Amino acid sequence: MSLLGAIEAGGTKFVVAVAPIEDPEKVVARESFPTEDGAATVKKVQEFFDQYEDIAAIGIASFGPIDVKPDSATYGYVLDTPKRGWSGYDFLGAMKAWRDIPYYWTTDVNAAGWAEYVSGAASDVENVVYLTVGTGVGAGIIANGQFVGGYSHPEAGHIVMAKHEKDTYEGLCPFHHDRCLEGLAAGPAMEERWGVSAKELPDDHLAWEIEAYYLAQAALTYTATLRPERIVFGGGVPHREVLLPMVRKSFAEQLHDYLAVPDLDDYIVSVGNGDNAGIYGCFYLAKELVSD
Amino acid sequence: MSLLGAIEAGGTKFVVAVAPIEDPEKVVARESFPTEDGAATVKKVQEFFDQYEDIAAIGIASFGPIDVKPDSATYGYVLDTPKRGWSGYDFLGAMKAWRDIPYYWTTDVNAAGWAEYVSGAASDVENVVYLTVGTGVGAGIIANGQFVGGYSHPEAGHIVMAKHEKDTYEGLCPFHHDRCLEGLAAGPAMEERWGVSAKELPDDHLAWEIEAYYLAQAALTYTATLRPERIVFGGGVPHREVLLPMVRKSFAEQLHDYLAVPDLDDYIVSVGNGDNAGIYGCFYLAKELVSD
Repeated sequence: MSLLGAIEAGGTKFVVAVAPIEDPEKVVARESFPTEDGAATVKKVQEFFDQYEDIAAIGIASFGPIDVKPDSATYGYVLDTPKRGWSGYDFLGAMKAWRDIPYYWTTDVNAAGWAEYVSGAASDVENVVYLTVGTGVGAGIIANGQFVGGYSHPEAGHIVMAKHEKDTYEGLCPFHHDRCLEGLAAGPAMEERWGVSAKELPDDHLAWEIEAYYLAQAALTYTATLRPERIVFGGGVPHREVLLPMVRKSFAEQLHDYLAVPDLDDYIVSVGNGDNAGIYGCFYLAKELVSD
Repeated sequence: MSLLGAIEAGGTKFVVAVAPIEDPEKVVARESFPTEDGAATVKKVQEFFDQYEDIAAIGIASFGPIDVKPDSATYGYVLDTPKRGWSGYDFLGAMKAWRDIPYYWTTDVNAAGWAEYVSGAASDVENVVYLTVGTGVGAGIIANGQFVGGYSHPEAGHIVMAKHEKDTYEGLCPFHHDRCLEGLAAGPAMEERWGVSAKELPDDHLAWEIEAYYLAQAALTYTATLRPERIVFGGGVPHREVLLPMVRKSFAEQLHDYLAVPDLDDYIVSVGNGDNAGIYGCFYLAKELVSD
């Protein structure tokens, strides 16, 4: 049986898995372990895959920033990051030195977005924004069935924002403070603003009105720029069930009927793949390398 | 000699032209006339092209909003617009009824952006934002060599903006007031804010600092979302020579070194095709229909 490999490389946790080429969602084996430094973590990755001879290709979905420009001297590297032992680490090179097979190298959010596009909440369209809102805010963006991102991968959590009139919070982004989406709307920003974890905030707390306003504003800016057919929300924060209905309502208010958009219940939606999105995305992207 | 046709359909002026397929920038004939209602204007368009038997395809670059979804019942129509005699006009249908040849139907800004991509200031890259700042603000966006826009065409002049701290202007956008780029930074917004035409404002006027700030902020949001390789500025407002250097400076300040971007002199640039961008774009898009 010919297999595909997946490496979901998160800042706190790595997940590795293998699945058959013919049915990538039928995961054969899966392991996870805490993220150590680059070399130590990738050694564990390789030990996992050493158990499998017949891997046709591997998809790598990495935390960022990473170099995704094929013609760059540091293509495949993790770039400057506060994560110890990773800045300048040649992740892709280490994998190729271990086993010289095809690798699909992309960001964690691109892979999760791709999974939504292939088999999740956006499997019927060609133009998707996948937005994850958790420890950070990031997006995987697909236009005409291809990832958007020329000079590098998007960092769409750092678009500039207008503040909510009731929000006096100074923002969490070390670069943009209260001027960007991540600085205002990531989970840690909610926690610092209100003094408790987002999970402990009741449904009727002002926190959710403000959060919905920012996510809707971001959705509006992505809509005006990209005119996607669907915006898929993943990550921990949108797990709160009241949130997406509030985002839809705020989106409609901020849009002022200016643009035609799909029915909002079909436009602003939750992930279809849940926690498997990253792994599935790796498999489907790896499959692109072997099925042409 | 086999020809291509171009229709640059503006809200105040139409330009029609023909050029040889082999060298679309060698314009054979060109005419322009004021925009009347849909039927009257398109009649003049057809009378111009009636002089030429051998037109292989025509590119139409229309003011918007227009329906660009091929599977839509109103594909090829001009949608709701304050422009008298155009709302719901079947522009493409009228052309097809006149002569049944291939037409490339898109927005004015897409066509101008395509010309920059093929032969203008972005001819060496595959990922471009073309932003025009004049009577309105609009963008033609190319990712991986294709137009971005799934549900419809972008309206990237309507992204949400954070206001400049010295700007008390209430904004011009009938939908978003002072909350969107067009409402704050289009030519008429400058004129209403300062009481004189932008052309009459001296180089050292606060107006240009504020304008540069908004254009840089927009460039930053497009950068985070799309990671283009180049942002090309067209339209009347960027004709002011001091403006783009100020946009680059403000962009660097607002970016805070967060993302890697190309050298700013190569990243934030003026159009290469000048006033011909719309016509050239029509020719090159029409050529796509006959050369495959």
